[in-house]
Amino acid sequence: MARFLRDKEQKAGLPPGSLVFTGQHKISEPKIRIIEYNSSDLQETSLDPLESIPYCPYPAKAVWMNLDGVHDSELIKRIGDRFNISPMALEDILDTGQRPFIEEYQNYLFSTLKIFISGTSEQKIFSEQVCFVLGKNYLITFQEQPGPTFDAVLKRLSKAKSKIRQNNTDYLFYTLMDCVLENYLKVIEIIGERIEDLEEEVTTDPCPEHLESINFYRREIAYIRKSIRPVREIIMKMNKLNSEFISEDTLGYMKDLPNMIDQALDSLEIYKDILGDLFTTYNMYMGTRLNETMKFLTIFSTIFIPLTFIAGLYGMNFEVIPGLHNPHGFAISIGIMAAISGVMLILFKFKKWL
Amino acid sequence: MARFLRDKEQKAGLPPGSLVFTGQHKISEPKIRIIEYNSSDLQETSLDPLESIPYCPYPAKAVWMNLDGVHDSELIKRIGDRFNISPMALEDILDTGQRPFIEEYQNYLFSTLKIFISGTSEQKIFSEQVCFVLGKNYLITFQEQPGPTFDAVLKRLSKAKSKIRQNNTDYLFYTLMDCVLENYLKVIEIIGERIEDLEEEVTTDPCPEHLESINFYRREIAYIRKSIRPVREIIMKMNKLNSEFISEDTLGYMKDLPNMIDQALDSLEIYKDILGDLFTTYNMYMGTRLNETMKFLTIFSTIFIPLTFIAGLYGMNFEVIPGLHNPHGFAISIGIMAAISGVMLILFKFKKWL
Amino acid sequence: MARFLRDKEQKAGLPPGSLVFTGQHKISEPKIRIIEYNSSDLQETSLDPLESIPYCPYPAKAVWMNLDGVHDSELIKRIGDRFNISPMALEDILDTGQRPFIEEYQNYLFSTLKIFISGTSEQKIFSEQVCFVLGKNYLITFQEQPGPTFDAVLKRLSKAKSKIRQNNTDYLFYTLMDCVLENYLKVIEIIGERIEDLEEEVTTDPCPEHLESINFYRREIAYIRKSIRPVREIIMKMNKLNSEFISEDTLGYMKDLPNMIDQALDSLEIYKDILGDLFTTYNMYMGTRLNETMKFLTIFSTIFIPLTFIAGLYGMNFEVIPGLHNPHGFAISIGIMAAISGVMLILFKFKKWL
Amino acid sequence: MARFLRDKEQKAGLPPGSLVFTGQHKISEPKIRIIEYNSSDLQETSLDPLESIPYCPYPAKAVWMNLDGVHDSELIKRIGDRFNISPMALEDILDTGQRPFIEEYQNYLFSTLKIFISGTSEQKIFSEQVCFVLGKNYLITFQEQPGPTFDAVLKRLSKAKSKIRQNNTDYLFYTLMDCVLENYLKVIEIIGERIEDLEEEVTTDPCPEHLESINFYRREIAYIRKSIRPVREIIMKMNKLNSEFISEDTLGYMKDLPNMIDQALDSLEIYKDILGDLFTTYNMYMGTRLNETMKFLTIFSTIFIPLTFIAGLYGMNFEVIPGLHNPHGFAISIGIMAAISGVMLILFKFKKWL
Amino acid sequence: MARFLRDKEQKAGLPPGSLVFTGQHKISEPKIRIIEYNSSDLQETSLDPLESIPYCPYPAKAVWMNLDGVHDSELIKRIGDRFNISPMALEDILDTGQRPFIEEYQNYLFSTLKIFISGTSEQKIFSEQVCFVLGKNYLITFQEQPGPTFDAVLKRLSKAKSKIRQNNTDYLFYTLMDCVLENYLKVIEIIGERIEDLEEEVTTDPCPEHLESINFYRREIAYIRKSIRPVREIIMKMNKLNSEFISEDTLGYMKDLPNMIDQALDSLEIYKDILGDLFTTYNMYMGTRLNETMKFLTIFSTIFIPLTFIAGLYGMNFEVIPGLHNPHGFAISIGIMAAISGVMLILFKFKKWL
Repeated sequence: MARFLRDKEQKAGLPPGSLVFTGQHKISEPKIRIIEYNSSDLQETSLDPLESIPYCPYPAKAVWMNLDGVHDSELIKRIGDRFNISPMALEDILDTGQRPFIEEYQNYLFSTLKIFISGTSEQKIFSEQVCFVLGKNYLITFQEQPGPTFDAVLKRLSKAKSKIRQNNTDYLFYTLMDCVLENYLKVIEIIGERIEDLEEEVTTDPCPEHLESINFYRREIAYIRKSIRPVREIIMKMNKLNSEFISEDTLGYMKDLPNMIDQALDSLEIYKDILGDLFTTYNMYMGTRLNETMKFLTIFSTIFIPLTFIAGLYGMNFEVIPGLHNPHGFAISIGIMAAISGVMLILFKFKKWL
Repeated sequence: MARFLRDKEQKAGLPPGSLVFTGQHKISEPKIRIIEYNSSDLQETSLDPLESIPYCPYPAKAVWMNLDGVHDSELIKRIGDRFNISPMALEDILDTGQRPFIEEYQNYLFSTLKIFISGTSEQKIFSEQVCFVLGKNYLITFQEQPGPTFDAVLKRLSKAKSKIRQNNTDYLFYTLMDCVLENYLKVIEIIGERIEDLEEEVTTDPCPEHLESINFYRREIAYIRKSIRPVREIIMKMNKLNSEFISEDTLGYMKDLPNMIDQALDSLEIYKDILGDLFTTYNMYMGTRLNETMKFLTIFSTIFIPLTFIAGLYGMNFEVIPGLHNPHGFAISIGIMAAISGVMLILFKFKKWL
Repeated sequence: MARFLRDKEQKAGLPPGSLVFTGQHKISEPKIRIIEYNSSDLQETSLDPLESIPYCPYPAKAVWMNLDGVHDSELIKRIGDRFNISPMALEDILDTGQRPFIEEYQNYLFSTLKIFISGTSEQKIFSEQVCFVLGKNYLITFQEQPGPTFDAVLKRLSKAKSKIRQNNTDYLFYTLMDCVLENYLKVIEIIGERIEDLEEEVTTDPCPEHLESINFYRREIAYIRKSIRPVREIIMKMNKLNSEFISEDTLGYMKDLPNMIDQALDSLEIYKDILGDLFTTYNMYMGTRLNETMKFLTIFSTIFIPLTFIAGLYGMNFEVIPGLHNPHGFAISIGIMAAISGVMLILFKFKKWL
Repeated sequence: MARFLRDKEQKAGLPPGSLVFTGQHKISEPKIRIIEYNSSDLQETSLDPLESIPYCPYPAKAVWMNLDGVHDSELIKRIGDRFNISPMALEDILDTGQRPFIEEYQNYLFSTLKIFISGTSEQKIFSEQVCFVLGKNYLITFQEQPGPTFDAVLKRLSKAKSKIRQNNTDYLFYTLMDCVLENYLKVIEIIGERIEDLEEEVTTDPCPEHLESINFYRREIAYIRKSIRPVREIIMKMNKLNSEFISEDTLGYMKDLPNMIDQALDSLEIYKDILGDLFTTYNMYMGTRLNETMKFLTIFSTIFIPLTFIAGLYGMNFEVIPGLHNPHGFAISIGIMAAISGVMLILFKFKKWL
Repeated sequence: MARFLRDKEQKAGLPPGSLVFTGQHKISEPKIRIIEYNSSDLQETSLDPLESIPYCPYPAKAVWMNLDGVHDSELIKRIGDRFNISPMALEDILDTGQRPFIEEYQNYLFSTLKIFISGTSEQKIFSEQVCFVLGKNYLITFQEQPGPTFDAVLKRLSKAKSKIRQNNTDYLFYTLMDCVLENYLKVIEIIGERIEDLEEEVTTDPCPEHLESINFYRREIAYIRKSIRPVREIIMKMNKLNSEFISEDTLGYMKDLPNMIDQALDSLEIYKDILGDLFTTYNMYMGTRLNETMKFLTIFSTIFIPLTFIAGLYGMNFEVIPGLHNPHGFAISIGIMAAISGVMLILFKFKKWL
């Protein structure tokens, strides 16, 4: 499935701007939630996907429209028509395997990002695409399925005194971006903790499963990095765009974001190095352990070799062998053998081979 | 044949601008197809290579002229004369081992790119050169042989309502560029899937053939990367050129292209890393497997060594050896041997050597 | 605990600007020390955290306010209110896992840095966050706990003739920055000396503990590097900011800082390389040592093998074996064996296998 | 001889601008060839080194003066005086170990480059220095010895219709640069083919000589790269110089050069990677081969160990051993041994150890 | 001693600008040499360190003052006072562990560099600090001890016709810089030759001492690189400074310097790579040699194993063993053994194991 190129089936031979969904159907029916708010008032509506999309922009309020489920290209097209979104952007919403980017259009700012869904500790991390359309006083977000990433924002939005309520949708856009970056830091923290635990285990008692874990986390780090790195460019571009859709004040708040993304990327880099070191460490421990075993076995054999030789000597059928007729001959030969093996053991001990 | 420098024989000592074909004859006879179109009308003509090239630019229509087969330097020269193309550009068309680039000339924009022809899964990927000459209302494309890469564009061109028909040849140029990038993404997807399959196989049951596959794909990735990387520069340059041959609107559509090429290059980078990891993983599995075998054999031998020694003891010809005359002596000695080997087995088990 | 992302628990779902402490309580009660000074006069006050914060800026004197212990978010808020510090900056003070950065606000310059606390030679190095709020004639520093890093500055401050006393708080800020960089150089020097000692030990008599040390120092270097690298950007930015809070004269003194940070980073880079080399050297020495052991044991066994064979020959029960009845047969056979082993020893010596 | 720093003896303690030859005497006597040409006329003269240098610039013609052999510092000085070349440039001509560079002086453009002389396939590649002094209507080239690199240009120069004849010396300079770059591509092609052949051999039947070849080509690639990389800077600088000595038209032709040098550098990079891969592949094949041998020998020994043990059992001298008096005892014991070895062989086959 | 951070003891807790010497006393008493010169006249004076420093700038002559030995902070301070040098610069002179840099002050240009003192071939290379204070018509150089680096300049200075005498102190500064760079190239040449010799030795007859040499040179290369790399920045900065202390003409002469430093850095890079390759090559040769030994020993043992088994067979005490009573039995069994070992030898030869 070529996870490291795109996570999706590819459409072939279609013109640019064709509205065809190319991801996985993650939920059965799309859900639309519209929140109109200003500092004094907030109204939340759930819209049936079949209903007509209400006209925007509403003059007096900021509007956040969220769509969960982007597989219905017809619905996307209707939203696009209502808000005058270009087919190029709509195509990017439907194509969930996009590389994150930001682009300013005439009447809105368009951006796609990835958020991570982390399951239990042995599962792969998966990314989902989130798209933002930021207009003058509206923000439309497109998610592949309902998720908890933006729940904290919803909660704060319900409080009349919160900053989000005091500001326009560009501030809302910023808080959502902040959420996305927190999501990155969190997923890195989760994986980072597991890697540091793994490091602990590998350096104390390495076993073959660790090798699989190391390779698994390497892939995960590569996967996360691929989704996060373009976000750095997005944030840098946002500052340079001087877009009319983001106010000076909000840009001021955004000063924090480059720092967050750099922190994420720095850490990924370090965890990548740690996994590389872990791999060599694992190899070395395993090699050393095997070699110790082989060394012990070789030493064991080596001690018996002269003894067997002496036994062989006295097993020869010569007529005259000194000591054969001595009644203590056997005991003496056993004694000699014991002495030889004792000397060898001492020698090996002295040479630190044991 | 120095595939990683050029795919072709080198001409030596010729002046710059000499029109000599330096590639492989891939088809017997060049084919020329001319499509004149505007939003209402479309006319397709097949031209005999020996006929005279009709004069361009046609005043009222956009013209796309495609040549399959570039080995006929005489024909190339005639086309060049008709469209007033500089000998430097014509030389680049004939020299199929060029590094991709774009250059603006006085009355046209010239670019060469590579497209990939991927055969069945075990075959090498090969690149072919495509050249573009984009004038005010004409576009000439030069391909080494007929191929399916641009078929989708032809199909869309046949529909009067399609965007291509509504726009001039610069938009056509953009859609062809888009096709070329899709071709890159597709070839990376194909090779990516194979690499991810290979990874699966190597981590479950590695065998020596996998090593060859790893090296094979490494070469392929290097080969693709060499052809694609310069395309990034081309696209960046296209945006900065401010060329009169590409309209503002088309430039707007082109905003997607840098993202596509970055996605391609990112993925190549990751696949390159995966192959590197796979190589070490393969080596490690093979080494471990061998070492396990050697360890088993050594342990097997080690167990017999004290037994053989005891047998040797009682094979000595001393007159007096305790137990020789005991009728159960043999059985007792066998019992002692069994006990020793049992103890050793338990010990090895305990030490996790078995 | 994901040390390489942040050193702290993460707050989840809180709005940006929420004042919640996210580090470790390192001291039980915060301590505030206020130093007002000019060239003629200096006055030091200890403030109870519960007292009200005196109003600033004081017209005639420079004020340095230092807070040890940043876990009391209420106190931080009160200080913030008094000095009109934005909630964003206050949040950064409370969040001790920040990536170092500098930011200019309307009425002050805000920066966070890390300083290192190095324990005894086997302990991990830990970093603490220091925050600076530099206003027109005041400087507020926030430390996690009382430490010796700034003691030298305090001492110099007490001398009326010192440059710090002659200048405003921007010069004080510079001397503190200088202290921080000296702290970096010192911690690198400490770890560098240990690494060079370790190198000495590893190349003379490597033992398995060295491997742990190598890995330990690798982590430490990565940890230090992660905290120091952003400081380079800070210093570069400081020069470009043209901030009103740093006078031209002080900027002149600051010319030294980039050089110090480059020296620190260069050395870290070299120590990282040395550790990498040490790792391979260690591996090689250990491998060589083991191989020498195995070679010796193998040679030892090899010498006995033909001897045992000869003993076996004369242990066969054929009726007629030449020499069996010779009274010197045994001695002769022993002689032959001695000769064979002698020849083998000479041969091995000659081949430099012994 | 420190080939990777300079190829020459170093002069010590001389002032900058001292005219002392520091290379190898490659030919016994310098040769001067002067070609005066314009579109209608061409005149070639061989000058005796002892004759006086004719005055330049000639008003109506372009002049190309070529000197083969640069060891005669007296002659170089005389040429320098005639053409008013600064001592710094003259020194660079005499010092054949220079790093390639370009520099604009008041009345000429000065550049030094390397060309490669490749012998038969096992010989090292050696570079020679070529210097260019490009004035208003003259070009002086300094070569260490006569060589074929510029022969193609000479041939084209003899044709009155050739572009070189239609243009001034700046175009001649460009064609010579083009020759030099073709020389680079050719030497890379030669070495590239050998490397790809070597790759073929190493992957089919590796032998110790291949290791030497790999190291040999690594050095060659490093050597070529060292000489070529600065040429990229030269070409980039040439475009930015806006020099009066290179006309706009010629600059237009030069658009090709950056692409050629990038192609050369890209390929060198890939060949370097291939050699690195080849090294690991070689190592792995050799290791695998040895290990297979060792495994076979170990298995062989292992099979005999229990057999020898059984023989030892029946060699014991107990009075009562079951079966000793059985007339078929020997045959039975042989049968048991055959059975044991058979079972072991089957087991090893089953475990894929054979 | 943390050679890779600084070569010196660290001063702790001192204010920036404190004049404390932190290096090693390399000579017992500082020596001052003052040379006043112009094109017609030159006067050299040795000054007693206790004498008062003559006032500068002298109106009509250029003055070069050189101080050998910088441990006398009192003397440095007196010089500083006389020439109005800032305490920051004086501190840098006394602190011999500085990273090389250049800084323009109001009335002079200040720079510190490293020069290398190379002893005999087995000794470590050590660097010394040289500081330059370049004023309008004076140049002060501070060296740790007298050395030959600037001797060539002194000699040229004595010739009235030399360029140095025709120019001001900025040209002198340039020639000294040129000397320093020549010193770098020379030290790299010396170490480069040794490395190329070592390469020769390692590839023909590697021995354990080579490993130490490889590690030794690695350290030396890292040490040199650390001192030289900042010089590149210095030279680049010098060109951009547009300083009033360096005339346009002298800047013209300085065009050579970037090329020299690039040559030095390129070569260091290549030698670093060569040492890396040498390390792997050494390892491989040693591994191969050991493996060959082990293989030989194993084969030797393997040949005796079936022979010993046969001897064991006929050593069994069965009553009936075919051939025991045959008078030629022993000879026949010996013959069989010889045949078996012969066949094995041929087989091993055929399989290329011998």
